[in-house]
Amino acid sequence: MTRNQEKALVLLSGGVDSSTCLAIAASQGFSCFAMSFRYGQRNDLELSSASRVAQAFAVVEHRVVELGLDAIGGSVLTSEGEVPKSPDGLTPTSAKGAVPATYVPARNSIFLSVGAAWAEVLGTDHLFIGVNQVDFSGYPDCRPEFILAIQQALRLGMRRSSLIIHAPLQYLSKGEIIRWGVELGLDYGLTWSCYDPQHGLACGCCDSCVYRKNGFIQARIADPT
Amino acid sequence: MTRNQEKALVLLSGGVDSSTCLAIAASQGFSCFAMSFRYGQRNDLELSSASRVAQAFAVVEHRVVELGLDAIGGSVLTSEGEVPKSPDGLTPTSAKGAVPATYVPARNSIFLSVGAAWAEVLGTDHLFIGVNQVDFSGYPDCRPEFILAIQQALRLGMRRSSLIIHAPLQYLSKGEIIRWGVELGLDYGLTWSCYDPQHGLACGCCDSCVYRKNGFIQARIADPT
Repeated sequence: MTRNQEKALVLLSGGVDSSTCLAIAASQGFSCFAMSFRYGQRNDLELSSASRVAQAFAVVEHRVVELGLDAIGGSVLTSEGEVPKSPDGLTPTSAKGAVPATYVPARNSIFLSVGAAWAEVLGTDHLFIGVNQVDFSGYPDCRPEFILAIQQALRLGMRRSSLIIHAPLQYLSKGEIIRWGVELGLDYGLTWSCYDPQHGLACGCCDSCVYRKNGFIQARIADPT
Repeated sequence: MTRNQEKALVLLSGGVDSSTCLAIAASQGFSCFAMSFRYGQRNDLELSSASRVAQAFAVVEHRVVELGLDAIGGSVLTSEGEVPKSPDGLTPTSAKGAVPATYVPARNSIFLSVGAAWAEVLGTDHLFIGVNQVDFSGYPDCRPEFILAIQQALRLGMRRSSLIIHAPLQYLSKGEIIRWGVELGLDYGLTWSCYDPQHGLACGCCDSCVYRKNGFIQARIADPT
């Protein structure tokens, strides 16, 4: 499908999901822009990954927006506190349905609002985000009903009233996501998942590492990182 | 009315509306917190006003969060470009119903999302914002239907699902707002409205100055600034 170079803005953290999302938007013929956030996250290695992935897909422009969310806290990702670790490296630490310690209050509301702002300035309605069911068991701001509600709020609150939040991974497993990305030529060696890297290496046992590892196992593909 | 020191978070720009909002929340017996944003606005004199008003009402804590919205632009407030000026200092420049050049894309979605994040960390459902009908003719993110929609989105996307966005000024005119604030003991000499100050003085003819001036005329009260 080509779209005559309609623009799309992809929220890009540099992890598996958002990078796959960029690959999908590019494969759909959009002229892609990418936006990342330096929001006080303990792991800002992900920002270099985001920039490598953005380059690999030759985005028109990649902007990194500064957000001082560490002034607010409420998460082990933006303040002191231990990132929970899986004892066996394969079982996630967060119980199904519980909100994990890595939850950042209102993160996707903030990211989608800032993304919608740039999308409006770019003159496009197409905003991509890589939320999916692996996350939405635990993070309320990854649930489909939240995505619809914030899309509605942003439509009512902006100059353009026809924003579409694309969440193409919403109902996919991590394995399905990775298989799709590989088909689209995404090199997962460029991506970064770990919440809590030590000396530049993935810890292998935070929930994000665990989901990544299990995703590659499900996809029967070797993780290049 | 006292509320046994339930907490409230007030979004405080230091202008007439948000300062009145803080006076109202304080008069309702809430234990008040205030949050302001340094978002790349050309006028950051308003931040010193915010801090004076916060002190006058003895808020428990006043935080200023940094948001790099100048990386996005789309407004004369956050990028280069002329702030429109009223030729007679009494007639607003923006036509009724049109979105003014001072509109900042998704600003209230972003501010309310960040506010909701801190409210959640503070453990309260009460978030105050000073939007009102003077604004909502022109700014889509001040309309009552937007406020309800973003409240709903934030309820769905956060750990606490019972956030209440209080907008006590929503249906009031500027004159009514000022009369209420004066009754509550707010010293409007502490507040700041001008979008485009010159050498630390209000320009007197941007729309924000014009609305302020007309509000004091309506209220039959002299503006102390």
